[in-house]
Amino acid sequence: MALIVQKFGGTSVADLERIRHAADKAIAARDAGHQVVVVLSAMSGETNRLLAMGQQMAAQPDSREMDQLAATGEQVTIALMAIHLNGRGYPAVSLQGWQVPIATNAVHGKARIEQIDSEHLHRLLNDGRIVVVAGFQGVSSEGNITTLGRGGSDTTAVALAAALNADECQIFTDVDGVYTTDPRMVPEAHRLDSITFKEMLELASQGSKVLQTRSVEFAGKYRVPLRVLSTFVDGPGTLISVEQGMEAPLVSGVACSRQEAWITVAHMPDTPFSASRVFGTLARAHIEVDMITQTPNAHQRTDFSFSVSRTDVTQAISVLAGALPELPAEAISVNNDVAKVSVIGVALRSHPELVMKLFDALAAEQIRLLAITTSESRISVLVPDTETERSVRTLHRAFGLSVAVKAE
Amino acid sequence: MALIVQKFGGTSVADLERIRHAADKAIAARDAGHQVVVVLSAMSGETNRLLAMGQQMAAQPDSREMDQLAATGEQVTIALMAIHLNGRGYPAVSLQGWQVPIATNAVHGKARIEQIDSEHLHRLLNDGRIVVVAGFQGVSSEGNITTLGRGGSDTTAVALAAALNADECQIFTDVDGVYTTDPRMVPEAHRLDSITFKEMLELASQGSKVLQTRSVEFAGKYRVPLRVLSTFVDGPGTLISVEQGMEAPLVSGVACSRQEAWITVAHMPDTPFSASRVFGTLARAHIEVDMITQTPNAHQRTDFSFSVSRTDVTQAISVLAGALPELPAEAISVNNDVAKVSVIGVALRSHPELVMKLFDALAAEQIRLLAITTSESRISVLVPDTETERSVRTLHRAFGLSVAVKAE
Repeated sequence: MALIVQKFGGTSVADLERIRHAADKAIAARDAGHQVVVVLSAMSGETNRLLAMGQQMAAQPDSREMDQLAATGEQVTIALMAIHLNGRGYPAVSLQGWQVPIATNAVHGKARIEQIDSEHLHRLLNDGRIVVVAGFQGVSSEGNITTLGRGGSDTTAVALAAALNADECQIFTDVDGVYTTDPRMVPEAHRLDSITFKEMLELASQGSKVLQTRSVEFAGKYRVPLRVLSTFVDGPGTLISVEQGMEAPLVSGVACSRQEAWITVAHMPDTPFSASRVFGTLARAHIEVDMITQTPNAHQRTDFSFSVSRTDVTQAISVLAGALPELPAEAISVNNDVAKVSVIGVALRSHPELVMKLFDALAAEQIRLLAITTSESRISVLVPDTETERSVRTLHRAFGLSVAVKAE
Repeated sequence: MALIVQKFGGTSVADLERIRHAADKAIAARDAGHQVVVVLSAMSGETNRLLAMGQQMAAQPDSREMDQLAATGEQVTIALMAIHLNGRGYPAVSLQGWQVPIATNAVHGKARIEQIDSEHLHRLLNDGRIVVVAGFQGVSSEGNITTLGRGGSDTTAVALAAALNADECQIFTDVDGVYTTDPRMVPEAHRLDSITFKEMLELASQGSKVLQTRSVEFAGKYRVPLRVLSTFVDGPGTLISVEQGMEAPLVSGVACSRQEAWITVAHMPDTPFSASRVFGTLARAHIEVDMITQTPNAHQRTDFSFSVSRTDVTQAISVLAGALPELPAEAISVNNDVAKVSVIGVALRSHPELVMKLFDALAAEQIRLLAITTSESRISVLVPDTETERSVRTLHRAFGLSVAVKAE
């Protein structure tokens, strides 16, 4: 007998028929002899509908009250599933965040879980019940309803799995696992049987939308085995865990992100202080910089180029323009038509031949690189946006990912 | 400074515009210097929508889970109103039943309030907040959400007013007060400025739908002054309180109910035991009998006729038919085409001339009476259904209610 936490997102509980279908998964796990905790999101679209109503009631809606409002979305789905499970003869009980309780801090709209008291849950599970918990929500020490922010149901599931010392946390979604890259971009992309937390984190932060970054971090920290599965297609999904299998390839996937912009600050004095002036200005405005290159010009001048998130471009330009005389620099330019393509794997830095392979493959396709960064588990290149898909396909093939899936 | 509890029903919070309009009432009371507690129902239709979803999930939906589901309806409206009030600069906080807390027993779907801890509410009110409380719901000692049954928001409002020792409990609804009779039936019907709890109870139990019987009982028990007002039309409404004014007329209104059926058990032996056999049979089946007549036939035989609620007719006929040999009786007949018309007032029994006036007025119109009952605050007659409106109009006029409304 294992203890399994199953999480179903909004599309998996979008209507009554789908809630019944999700209940089948919980019943199958129960029939296999496991203790089962189910974590549900609101029906897809419902949270947006609720928040839109709140936004119509005030210019700046009170955040405590927006949480009180939004939390009803999950309360509806958990009650409906518990009604269905009980009706099919599987004793079930639904719990809101405060009924677990899931204690959070008081930062409404993006609260962080501080503690989960698992005693009540264990009592219900030992009593043979399927426990259906509302995702995305908790309760502050003042007794106010809080929400964890969008996508927070994944975090709820992982946190519950950690608190209960669960054997596996299953994230049911509308894809059947984690892929080597986006299958819409590369038809030969295939599902991975397993991947490490570190790689999954890189994939998530580099544009894969399968799992919320925070929930992967959380699972890694508490070593909760995480499995991504499809609600709609049966299959083993992808297991995300601490250890990679012995036979696992070095490179597990290729991710891409189109959320980057490339900014150039031109013709600065080439002194040791120039870099700290540029990046200090941005840091004081809380703007995160990702990739950086420096290009010396003639006459002791230099250009700094760097990528920021597209959502930060306007502010970055504004603070730099204000600082032009002090930097000093002659011009600032911005290029939104760039994309970041990343190769994800284990211990990449200790395999310099992989960086060479990447350069060679892209060069053979005459794809121009604006910048490159490497880390323990990722090599990223910035390319012109028009070259995104060709870059992904080229790297997917070059690193041996475009091969037939091995038998399970 | 007074403490006012204001309750708004489903039609008064049916959409965002109406919630804003209801908020105006709370703001007006706050601006007048009062402490204000608002109690809200769910948007009209929402509770039915939620329960219908639950009913689609199981043949016999679990009642704990149905309460978990239904309670979201009020949670949405209280949050929306609190958002709006805060946005307009009136500090407000919404509270679900468990956040007050409103402690109830564990009878899901029709829980009874056991205790309200007013400390939290007083703290918020003394802090200058408008407190917006979810009607219809509470929490059991096990920490489960309970609901009070349909119309329970009135009960929540009255119970909060009693617990807070409020100066007035205002029930905002879609009519502008309590009328001498149904204005759709009698155009001369007029709004009463005031009425006693006892009269209001008789009106409510005799068919007036302005207030839920249980909330009137509760208000009378705790002597909470209750005022019925229109959400949509300004005006003083009707005050329901312990004392009737010195100048108040003896008769305050005429009610009618079309929920009656008239059953006759024919040709029983005319012995002292016959009545107890008939009504004992019904009592054992938990069927309530209202009006009773006995009509002797020739040959030492007698007929018993009595009224029951139309919802009990089928069962009443069934148990009596099964008991025919033991009663013994020859036949059972039923007449659904009857209505009960009641004159409501104070101390009617001590004014026998009023009963005479009633007989005379109906006789003058040649209206046939099937039965008559009197109590301290009510005289009721059973008439053929076709005579209902004529009976109401006749009595409304006979008892001096069809006069111009006196100046306030």
